[in-house]
Amino acid sequence: MTDLFGKELRVINVGASTFNEDYRRQNIPFIHLDWRPPAGGDAELLGMLEQLEARRPEITRANDEVLRRVKSAQGKLVGVKLAREVLPGMDRRIILHAGPPIAWANMAGPMRGAIIGALMYEGWATTPELALALAASGEICFAPCHEYGAVGPMAGVISPSMPVHVLLDEVHEKRAYCTVNEGLGKVLRYGAHSEAVLQRLRWIENDFAPILDAALALAGGIDVKGIISQALHMGDECHNRNKAATGLFLREIMPHVLRTSFPLEQKIAALEFIKGNDHYFLNLSMPYCKLALAAGHGVEQATVCTVMARNGYEFGIKISSSDRWFTGKANKIEGLLFPGFTMEDAAPDIGDSAITETMGLGGFAMGGAPAIVQFVGGRVEDAFRYSRQMHEICHGENQAFTLPTLDFMPTALGIDIRKVIATGILPIINTGMAHKEPGVGQVGAGLVRPPMSCFKAALEAVASH
Amino acid sequence: MTDLFGKELRVINVGASTFNEDYRRQNIPFIHLDWRPPAGGDAELLGMLEQLEARRPEITRANDEVLRRVKSAQGKLVGVKLAREVLPGMDRRIILHAGPPIAWANMAGPMRGAIIGALMYEGWATTPELALALAASGEICFAPCHEYGAVGPMAGVISPSMPVHVLLDEVHEKRAYCTVNEGLGKVLRYGAHSEAVLQRLRWIENDFAPILDAALALAGGIDVKGIISQALHMGDECHNRNKAATGLFLREIMPHVLRTSFPLEQKIAALEFIKGNDHYFLNLSMPYCKLALAAGHGVEQATVCTVMARNGYEFGIKISSSDRWFTGKANKIEGLLFPGFTMEDAAPDIGDSAITETMGLGGFAMGGAPAIVQFVGGRVEDAFRYSRQMHEICHGENQAFTLPTLDFMPTALGIDIRKVIATGILPIINTGMAHKEPGVGQVGAGLVRPPMSCFKAALEAVASH
Repeated sequence: MTDLFGKELRVINVGASTFNEDYRRQNIPFIHLDWRPPAGGDAELLGMLEQLEARRPEITRANDEVLRRVKSAQGKLVGVKLAREVLPGMDRRIILHAGPPIAWANMAGPMRGAIIGALMYEGWATTPELALALAASGEICFAPCHEYGAVGPMAGVISPSMPVHVLLDEVHEKRAYCTVNEGLGKVLRYGAHSEAVLQRLRWIENDFAPILDAALALAGGIDVKGIISQALHMGDECHNRNKAATGLFLREIMPHVLRTSFPLEQKIAALEFIKGNDHYFLNLSMPYCKLALAAGHGVEQATVCTVMARNGYEFGIKISSSDRWFTGKANKIEGLLFPGFTMEDAAPDIGDSAITETMGLGGFAMGGAPAIVQFVGGRVEDAFRYSRQMHEICHGENQAFTLPTLDFMPTALGIDIRKVIATGILPIINTGMAHKEPGVGQVGAGLVRPPMSCFKAALEAVASH
Repeated sequence: MTDLFGKELRVINVGASTFNEDYRRQNIPFIHLDWRPPAGGDAELLGMLEQLEARRPEITRANDEVLRRVKSAQGKLVGVKLAREVLPGMDRRIILHAGPPIAWANMAGPMRGAIIGALMYEGWATTPELALALAASGEICFAPCHEYGAVGPMAGVISPSMPVHVLLDEVHEKRAYCTVNEGLGKVLRYGAHSEAVLQRLRWIENDFAPILDAALALAGGIDVKGIISQALHMGDECHNRNKAATGLFLREIMPHVLRTSFPLEQKIAALEFIKGNDHYFLNLSMPYCKLALAAGHGVEQATVCTVMARNGYEFGIKISSSDRWFTGKANKIEGLLFPGFTMEDAAPDIGDSAITETMGLGGFAMGGAPAIVQFVGGRVEDAFRYSRQMHEICHGENQAFTLPTLDFMPTALGIDIRKVIATGILPIINTGMAHKEPGVGQVGAGLVRPPMSCFKAALEAVASH
């Protein structure tokens, strides 16, 4: 010991970083090793991880198979149809919503607002008050979009008369569905339900959807996966930045829209609607991710997530080997607020759009879309760090989606619940922030992580299987 | 000395990096300082720099004024007109070309090929052989685009009947001009002049230009500077990558094209022409840069470049305080070749497109467009390094153009010939590579630097003033 303190100190500090300040003050050179005990040192979790260790070869093979399927999935936008025409079981008084299952009584403001709007849009109620009573009456069936092969941003409300983008994966013969993005400002997905909101929805149903559907028939479909791949080289991460992807989609669909037989002014209006909304593509990116992950769902033993979704109350995940939802309390978002709002105004994390992160886009691909920090907050180096860090909790990577900024690093793919538990690193999600009250709309955007409890619950289920 | 070698060595190696290998072998820690003697130690150049040092306050003020003017310039695309209608002095047998002045006898293959094509396009010759004879006869006036407020990529040929984009800077009441980009493959600007090339030029003149001109009238012009600013956040550097900018331009002009009175099929063809060419916007980016730099031209004492251009034989620069061209031999390009070609096939550096680098775009902004290394070669970290390095030779920076990848660093602006000479760092230019023979076309893309001799010549002129 005496000898040790006589010599020049060369320190490696493991774990708690609080000691580093002392080395700094005493001018002692040191290296900090950012280490934490596996599973936070939790004996029960460590026991479960150890138990799964015995099944490692089978689990690895299963996860390999999930990723093989997910990566081989294709995603082509083939039509825009009314939900009741294409979604089985939608020909009744049913409202789909974002996230895991939830009762009316627990629903957050934005979801309630969107449901009020949908009930009026369907003509099942004539005033917000009557809609509220109807929603609470038990006469309406509420179900998660995900249970119907669909996804919806924010409140994620889909009612039978709403047109949905239909995406086809020819490889696995699957389809996924998502509504048409309404734009920014006061919109249904943020819980707004004024007459202007409903009028826009009717215009989408009656004017926009028929043209786009006809154009898609002429085009023979549009390759959504290919557009995502290009847009990742153009500063998008296809969750909260869809500017390039929307432009690429617009230029692909444009000539086909123009060759439909609708009146010219109606065609121009349809094209200007897409042109005027940089987030149009979000509602194509999301169902593509759903489609690819659905291809990877249902592999026994697999520990990779195929769904992450939030209903504004709970955060839910699914893993490939189980049809159960594993849920925990939805977190608050940290980010940038629009002028005039405070963090008190924001609803907790909501929406199916975390399907993009489940697929390695969004927060996982932020390093390729550094301009997004102006929208969600943080620094560019954080964006780079997130994209690298997500590889630590993923089973593999996706060569179809690369990030030029990080030397063409492929995006991380396949969130492995074992790795999340072992490392304590939670998936990073970038997201819009809704006002907590119905009818207001978006108040900002930021970053959020799921609650660890979902992953613990999933691990328990796998370990006890 | 004995004492020195007894102690542990801590080495700073200054200059020549060849010693570093020895330190590495002997396991001696060292820091390398990348230092070179100013102006390469050239006594004459050092003398001139010293002489200018006495005038430093006036020169700084002059360069400040250049940058103030350049940054305040606006760039709006206001029309597409025939060159002879808008360029004074074009109503005669004249052909404009890229780069500094050059005689027919010295012109490189691509420029000769493009001139042969232009002479046939104008109807001044009916065969390539007759065009060749006419070009050599002295009956045709050849002049640099830059002398007419115009710019042209590669061969840069503009003849009187060619339509040109007209850009307006309302602040300085100036205009700049550039032809319509023909697309990739066999095109006039790379020296191709087959019947297919001429037919496309006629279609641009007769079908495309009138529609675009009418659409621009309806639009009241399109803000080119604003599109560049956005595209730099979308992976473009607006010289060799214009994919995002072309898409942004297309979405802006689209509704106006559709509202013109031309037949629908002609409108669709015009829009599909823009859609089909990711480089369409290059011919808008270039005249915007020309327009901005023209605003900064003509400030006495200034040592900042307002033009860099190449004719395939010589590289020429202009500085704000002089109307002279300072030239040197054009360099060979280093980069990636299209399949089937070798470096032997490539013509030397050619084209007015280095006006983008003069304005801080292109090679200067590569760090914001890392995907471009797949096209021009090199590694992503090189792209980052170039964008940082260019600040060492520039007088200032441009807050209108920022690079998210580099933490929103503004692009370097205002190449100061004194700094180029003092540091030995030459501007970095990314560029297309033309085949050296007329009529072939593009063979690849890569990186190139100007010859130091232009900057030396300019420095001499300034010092002796």
